[in-house]
Amino acid sequence: MVNETQHACSGSSSSRSDGGSSSGSESSKDNSRCSTPVLDPDRHERLREKMRRRQDAGDKWFSLEFFPPRTANAAVNLISRFDRMGAGGPLFIDVTWHPAGDPGSDKETSSMIIANTAVNYCGLETILHMTCCNQTKDDITGHLQKAKRLGLKNIMALRGDPSGEEWEEEVDGFNYAVDLVKHIRNEFDDYFDICVAGYPKGHPEAESYEADLRHLKEKVFAGADFIITQLFFRPETFLKFMKDCQAIGITCPIIPGIFPIQGYHSLRQLVKLSKLEVPQEIKDVIEPIKDNDAAIRSYGVELAVSMCRELLDSGMVHGLHFYTLNREVATTEVLKRLGLWREDPRRPLPWAVSAHPKRRVEDVRPIFWASRPKSYIYRTQEWDDFPNGRWGNSSSPAFGELKDYYLFYLKSKSPREELLKMWGEELTSEESVFEVFTCYITGEPNRNGYKVTCMPWNDDPLATETNLLKDELERVNRRGILTINSQPNINGKPSTDPIVGWGPSGGYVFQKAYLEFFTSSEIVTALLKVLKKYELRVNYHIVNVKGQNITNAPDLQPNAVTWGIFPGREIIQPTVVDPVSFLSWKDEAFALWIEQWAKLYEEESPSRMIIQYIHDNYYLVNLVDNDFPLENCLWQVVEDTFELLN
Amino acid sequence: MVNETQHACSGSSSSRSDGGSSSGSESSKDNSRCSTPVLDPDRHERLREKMRRRQDAGDKWFSLEFFPPRTANAAVNLISRFDRMGAGGPLFIDVTWHPAGDPGSDKETSSMIIANTAVNYCGLETILHMTCCNQTKDDITGHLQKAKRLGLKNIMALRGDPSGEEWEEEVDGFNYAVDLVKHIRNEFDDYFDICVAGYPKGHPEAESYEADLRHLKEKVFAGADFIITQLFFRPETFLKFMKDCQAIGITCPIIPGIFPIQGYHSLRQLVKLSKLEVPQEIKDVIEPIKDNDAAIRSYGVELAVSMCRELLDSGMVHGLHFYTLNREVATTEVLKRLGLWREDPRRPLPWAVSAHPKRRVEDVRPIFWASRPKSYIYRTQEWDDFPNGRWGNSSSPAFGELKDYYLFYLKSKSPREELLKMWGEELTSEESVFEVFTCYITGEPNRNGYKVTCMPWNDDPLATETNLLKDELERVNRRGILTINSQPNINGKPSTDPIVGWGPSGGYVFQKAYLEFFTSSEIVTALLKVLKKYELRVNYHIVNVKGQNITNAPDLQPNAVTWGIFPGREIIQPTVVDPVSFLSWKDEAFALWIEQWAKLYEEESPSRMIIQYIHDNYYLVNLVDNDFPLENCLWQVVEDTFELLN
Repeated sequence: MVNETQHACSGSSSSRSDGGSSSGSESSKDNSRCSTPVLDPDRHERLREKMRRRQDAGDKWFSLEFFPPRTANAAVNLISRFDRMGAGGPLFIDVTWHPAGDPGSDKETSSMIIANTAVNYCGLETILHMTCCNQTKDDITGHLQKAKRLGLKNIMALRGDPSGEEWEEEVDGFNYAVDLVKHIRNEFDDYFDICVAGYPKGHPEAESYEADLRHLKEKVFAGADFIITQLFFRPETFLKFMKDCQAIGITCPIIPGIFPIQGYHSLRQLVKLSKLEVPQEIKDVIEPIKDNDAAIRSYGVELAVSMCRELLDSGMVHGLHFYTLNREVATTEVLKRLGLWREDPRRPLPWAVSAHPKRRVEDVRPIFWASRPKSYIYRTQEWDDFPNGRWGNSSSPAFGELKDYYLFYLKSKSPREELLKMWGEELTSEESVFEVFTCYITGEPNRNGYKVTCMPWNDDPLATETNLLKDELERVNRRGILTINSQPNINGKPSTDPIVGWGPSGGYVFQKAYLEFFTSSEIVTALLKVLKKYELRVNYHIVNVKGQNITNAPDLQPNAVTWGIFPGREIIQPTVVDPVSFLSWKDEAFALWIEQWAKLYEEESPSRMIIQYIHDNYYLVNLVDNDFPLENCLWQVVEDTFELLN
Repeated sequence: MVNETQHACSGSSSSRSDGGSSSGSESSKDNSRCSTPVLDPDRHERLREKMRRRQDAGDKWFSLEFFPPRTANAAVNLISRFDRMGAGGPLFIDVTWHPAGDPGSDKETSSMIIANTAVNYCGLETILHMTCCNQTKDDITGHLQKAKRLGLKNIMALRGDPSGEEWEEEVDGFNYAVDLVKHIRNEFDDYFDICVAGYPKGHPEAESYEADLRHLKEKVFAGADFIITQLFFRPETFLKFMKDCQAIGITCPIIPGIFPIQGYHSLRQLVKLSKLEVPQEIKDVIEPIKDNDAAIRSYGVELAVSMCRELLDSGMVHGLHFYTLNREVATTEVLKRLGLWREDPRRPLPWAVSAHPKRRVEDVRPIFWASRPKSYIYRTQEWDDFPNGRWGNSSSPAFGELKDYYLFYLKSKSPREELLKMWGEELTSEESVFEVFTCYITGEPNRNGYKVTCMPWNDDPLATETNLLKDELERVNRRGILTINSQPNINGKPSTDPIVGWGPSGGYVFQKAYLEFFTSSEIVTALLKVLKKYELRVNYHIVNVKGQNITNAPDLQPNAVTWGIFPGREIIQPTVVDPVSFLSWKDEAFALWIEQWAKLYEEESPSRMIIQYIHDNYYLVNLVDNDFPLENCLWQVVEDTFELLN
């Protein structure tokens, strides 16, 4: 039994990290709610209720603010950041609204689409900012309707910066955030949770601090659920503000906005924008080290940690909101030092749960997309059968077409030059392709000295826990069994197991051994002979790009390959080998050869023709060893096949 | 681990035998179809297709004919016989139509209701006979509609005996079976499979053997699917008949009717009715031993075995139809000697699968009815959610009322006098009730020398495989933990295990340990203290007759307590502890104290008051040990409780 090697191959390693990063970003903090989402409707309560419950339980939490990126490549990077920072367990993230950047459009970089990605593909509770000045009622309603349709449930209602010097209030127009709050409540009733901004020093344009407090109260009384504040530099600034709010009858949660200073220039820019003054004691430290980024960041982290500690110790603060500036290091460090970063993310299911309300009861997926969970969500987004959380045996709804499929978030994170270095500037034979797969498995540099850290089917490096299976995988890849997904058999490990565990504690998880690979028709012929010996034990599906399909599965029934038994629950079987969806996955898996690899090379070039040959002639094979309590027989199947060939 | 003791307690032992007897009566003969019904739509194909498939596979099969009983008590006995003889694996049974006995009525003894019971409660493929002469078209259509509504799918179309001497053909009336065949096809299209009768010696009223063959051909061409013959005494009679049928173009299956001679008088009566002549060589043997029943039956078995062998060896016969005369021994012996009796009934699910087409996808049941599967089917017969095969967590449909509940087939098989001998002519204290439970467990005679072979919650004696749990059960019952259901934990036994196995071969079955009992409020108080120690491991539901309900289950989710993992399949979890249905079971379990036990005694008698006291004051408790891979902790929970009380 090789339990420690769970998710040993390429396929599963990223599934693991995805699972960790995006599965219920706050579950580890609250034992009573740590259960599979499908079985716990409470998990999907409103953000304001989550907030209250965390407060009642005495749990401290944090949230993260991001702005939309300018380019598609930056968007790909930001989404990886969502996955990584999501793993730390934020209660929510929020995405700012950039009026200049067509924020409600379908562009890959729009505020709307970035928020959509965070909710649906990264499984994060998300607040979408929205500003109202200089916009028509219809525009705003349209944005809100679209947000609702995409599964967004929370809006940060803002005025926005009036454009031009000559701005004047419009009668019956949207002049202040309070107008937007009222509009949302009028048009969408209680559907959205609404957040508004608070200014601990007063809004720079307000007549006075007191007048600004009154404006804030108006916003809350118009229907806002909680407040996030502008950044500030001294804890006492916030604590005074909070007391003043309470004194005039504001009782909703007020979340301090924390800005870890990350560099001299970003600080100056922010100060300019926010019209805040940096206290002298901070200037005194920073000016002398202004050219030393590391020193400034280190100071910024210290400062933020000490301010956050003071806020939390006051007993008045339960959550902290971080202005990340789309950066990772400083905020993560502050959170780790505060002990708020979730070190051991508990996965409610072995794959990333989408935060879209429609998909909350989803409880089973085909294993094929284990390394490409976002692609799976994308291709099944139109399914209207999700209220049942699964699909029937013979009535699988159609998968989304591949036509719209190469959206930015399905692209490789790596640029073309890097991919060429990893996968070969020039391929000379099928064997040189075997080498790429082998280098990916072993982690050794290729013949040109570059490490292969991703593959078309897997955008992430192999996980560290693959070492135990490495030898087998290396051996078979070297000989042309080009593995893209695998999992070991597991016979009842505790659900809290740090490597293979998922779901509530006190349970047991199980797996059937799985192996998926591309290989030549010669090897397939030998394999089929060998599989006769394993007929009653191993299920196989073998298909080529034309859809020629060889299987010993008696019908179109899915084969459960991951399942869990939990106290007081029904059985959960989150991963299956589903014969129907395998044919949809096949299209995607073969297309990746061409779209991600062959197209790196000139048309008609030998390299491109080699990949094209493999695409046209190889088979995609999956094998399941049904006898999960025994030693995995799939390696023996492969060895027998090689032996037969010799 | 006490795997051998599966279904150790009262509750489960009969579940076992029920499961065996009625679960897919023909599956063991056909490996390709030996799978859980829910996952194999083919299992539920038409009878004529089953017949053809068995013939194509070279499998030999048998079927059994019964007639409706005259009294309700006889009906209860006949239904037990269905269960026992169903265990042998008949392809179908058929129930004759008794025009004199109001055959289409709702009486417990009518042909219609007996056939309904066979299909729905015993899970047997069933043919209902129906005669047509002297009946109006509307009557006949009404009978057929009712049969369809009850889930009957096969009709044996007969003329019936014209009543009175003066019978004349009616113009446009139902004069012959062929009229009924045509009517069924006209009115119900292809819904029913239709069987007709064949007469190897010609019908006694036919003009000639040849004319009778032509009548038979008419019936087949009018839409009959297969033929069952009248009894005959020599194999050559049947073989000649079959060749003659084929010669005139009858190609459907022709099934020989076999009549094992069981006694002198029944033979004479049958011969008189059928107007057949007994061959001289048989008369010569029987006459000298006519007063020796055992000798005649032994001869009858020999004769039938040798005739059946000859028929099967001819290669023309694939199935044998037995006229059982509602008796068990002779037919069973013939079948066993022919090797047609299924010795090791494979269970597709751990409980009896109903043969009603509407329920074919049912794949989960609450464990509470394990010993009372017929009651469960009865109380859920109105559910229209069965197309899904299960019910939702919080949306369980209502269980049928208890009002109509004491139908004959839910009564004890034993008469009042026997029950009094077993359960006590006179009870003197709660302890004398404990003694009854204890004697049932141990199998020892009670103080009056009678064995306790059934209980209100369990109409069958303990199964033999209970010995390993007997000690624990005896100990706890003696002290007032009155067990009515239990199962041991099972951590992955092969699905072919003779004791705990179910479902297709190559799989693994699992169970969580379960214990259900009545006990006093004093013991419950101590138990609740003890259960605090087991809070994370043991789920409990404790309820009294008033519905006061104590549980540590967090919500209304079912807890899976039996599940199976199979090659190439999804997980199956056929048994759950369902908190919602437990409250319906509670009503039934408490009512059985009164209806079956208290009412044996005079009103106001001390015995009756003791049972009434228990009914009014005891609690019904169920416990699940969620940690199925570890040693069952439920006995320790009970021991700790007793210790606390001392």
